[in-house]
Amino acid sequence: MAGTPISTLGEFGLIRHLTEELPIHHKSTVFGVGDDAAILDYGKAAKRQLLTTDLLLEGIHFDLTYVPLKHLGYKAAMVNFSDIYAMNGYPKQLTVSIGVSKRFSIEMLEELYAGIRLACEQHQVDLVGGDTSSSLTGLCLSITCLGEADKDKVCTRYGAKKNDIVCVSGNLGAAYMGLQLLEREKAVFAQSSDVQPDFAGKEYILQRQLQPHARRDIVEALDKASIVPTSMMDVSDGLSSEMLHICEKSKVGCRIYEDKIPIDYETARMAEEFNMNLVTAALNGGEDYELLFTIPMELHERIGEVEGVHEIGFVTDAEDGALLVTRDGNQFALKAQGWNPLADSAS
Amino acid sequence: MAGTPISTLGEFGLIRHLTEELPIHHKSTVFGVGDDAAILDYGKAAKRQLLTTDLLLEGIHFDLTYVPLKHLGYKAAMVNFSDIYAMNGYPKQLTVSIGVSKRFSIEMLEELYAGIRLACEQHQVDLVGGDTSSSLTGLCLSITCLGEADKDKVCTRYGAKKNDIVCVSGNLGAAYMGLQLLEREKAVFAQSSDVQPDFAGKEYILQRQLQPHARRDIVEALDKASIVPTSMMDVSDGLSSEMLHICEKSKVGCRIYEDKIPIDYETARMAEEFNMNLVTAALNGGEDYELLFTIPMELHERIGEVEGVHEIGFVTDAEDGALLVTRDGNQFALKAQGWNPLADSAS
Repeated sequence: MAGTPISTLGEFGLIRHLTEELPIHHKSTVFGVGDDAAILDYGKAAKRQLLTTDLLLEGIHFDLTYVPLKHLGYKAAMVNFSDIYAMNGYPKQLTVSIGVSKRFSIEMLEELYAGIRLACEQHQVDLVGGDTSSSLTGLCLSITCLGEADKDKVCTRYGAKKNDIVCVSGNLGAAYMGLQLLEREKAVFAQSSDVQPDFAGKEYILQRQLQPHARRDIVEALDKASIVPTSMMDVSDGLSSEMLHICEKSKVGCRIYEDKIPIDYETARMAEEFNMNLVTAALNGGEDYELLFTIPMELHERIGEVEGVHEIGFVTDAEDGALLVTRDGNQFALKAQGWNPLADSAS
Repeated sequence: MAGTPISTLGEFGLIRHLTEELPIHHKSTVFGVGDDAAILDYGKAAKRQLLTTDLLLEGIHFDLTYVPLKHLGYKAAMVNFSDIYAMNGYPKQLTVSIGVSKRFSIEMLEELYAGIRLACEQHQVDLVGGDTSSSLTGLCLSITCLGEADKDKVCTRYGAKKNDIVCVSGNLGAAYMGLQLLEREKAVFAQSSDVQPDFAGKEYILQRQLQPHARRDIVEALDKASIVPTSMMDVSDGLSSEMLHICEKSKVGCRIYEDKIPIDYETARMAEEFNMNLVTAALNGGEDYELLFTIPMELHERIGEVEGVHEIGFVTDAEDGALLVTRDGNQFALKAQGWNPLADSAS
């Protein structure tokens, strides 16, 4: 290969590099590259349109050995809805493009679409188009979602202020532990196909990995409680990675308290079984699709009444850094050890 | 493989099959699957938003042996703009997602983006987002374009009426002959790398294949002439295939006159060199990205004043069929022999 390896920049660096100094031609483009979704203004005075897209490739983003096609379709749609919710908006339209190799049958694609349709039905999203072609290798899935938000409620990564409370919905690390479990059972099965996997008591972490729910309910609950976050992201690459994005874009620091990070007991039990550091899994695991957001300090009581939301820390000055405060009072710099889809690519 | 091979349905049949009876949840979804782009209504009373997406895979849609990355990026963007123009609208925003293997360097992706940026600059489109990840195999490129059209000027495939004039812009078959030339030179080069390709006098057909221009100028010219086509498509799969789409969707037939089909002399010379049927190339070649449209008969004189547009036939009753009238007066049924990206997939 001639030239500079992509891994020297990483995914985020690469996007930044390739899209720097982009001109903007249209008033309808309110905000382009650099958040969960682009923000568009199509003339409805009180509304903003949101546009997000995701590319999912077999062997990189999913493993069909253990991911049923219906779940894959469901998750692929959910991941895009989640990006729209992370802007404090609601998904409205979806397009799906697929590339398939000859080993796929119509029934298999029906399964995939059944999952996409189910997700669309649950989140009231219209599937409005797409493209189908063959692929020389695995399955390739590209999904684009268009959504809408009230103009004065759109949440970017740019608005966190000093003293804001850092909140996260649901719990973290479960999807990652579900993935570890599936990978282990795959390895066991590869050695001896007589051994059938035993997933009893592990349903929750599997569901979190295979069938994540985008948190429309949280967006609705925040709206009902008249809370507009100052910044928001969805947790796809892990809490550390997302929190660092917010700190960087908002030019702030943060203190996240280890003992406040919400973790489900199945996640904890599985981490023990794998002899893994539980907090590392919760901080860096990714694919939780929970919402991470910041709110003004004075909304502390009001957020306490929103079910399923946890206060996990505070926003500080940028020069104080982005810190994790451990149970014993030590402080460590948050590190983005999230899954890097560019670092581990095959040639 | 268990189940029914996808090739039994073909690309269009497959999309139709997977998206039949889709529910519509939102008033903002005016028209979903089944045209060049979805039609959305985001509240600007006089405007419609258009949404289209394309997935381009290495080895299927392009061959990096002879397609420079800058051209690939340019063409990928153009193809999407063309879908928006085919709705009689103007492209406004673009998202680009790429999957790359380790053999790609940053400089190579810069080339790709340079082509995308150039296309965006020429057509005044804002690049607003995307996604980058690794790929286990080749390059994977997914592009989504959002555009806008006047509500009463949007052109679907559904409005062609009996006695309408069938028109096409530019000329047909050149991109296909350009592809044949590139494939031949690739084969020659594979046998002996000492032989350098000689493309002198063949620049036009190469440009048509490698650097197609989406016909914004035709959309502008039609607007200026106060002509709103009754139906419109862009020619990506070949004239026959597109004309049959319009006939099917509009429930009409047509008569296309062989001697009216516009063909460039370089295309004709190349067809002779390859000993190929010129009309077949023009009818089925594809990738011309010209605009095929129908207009009311009474606009015959007015369309005559629009530069670069050719009248090639008439719309008839559906029961009269979709026919090609040859130079000697014979009639043949139009057949969609357009390139089928699902039929020739490797396993």
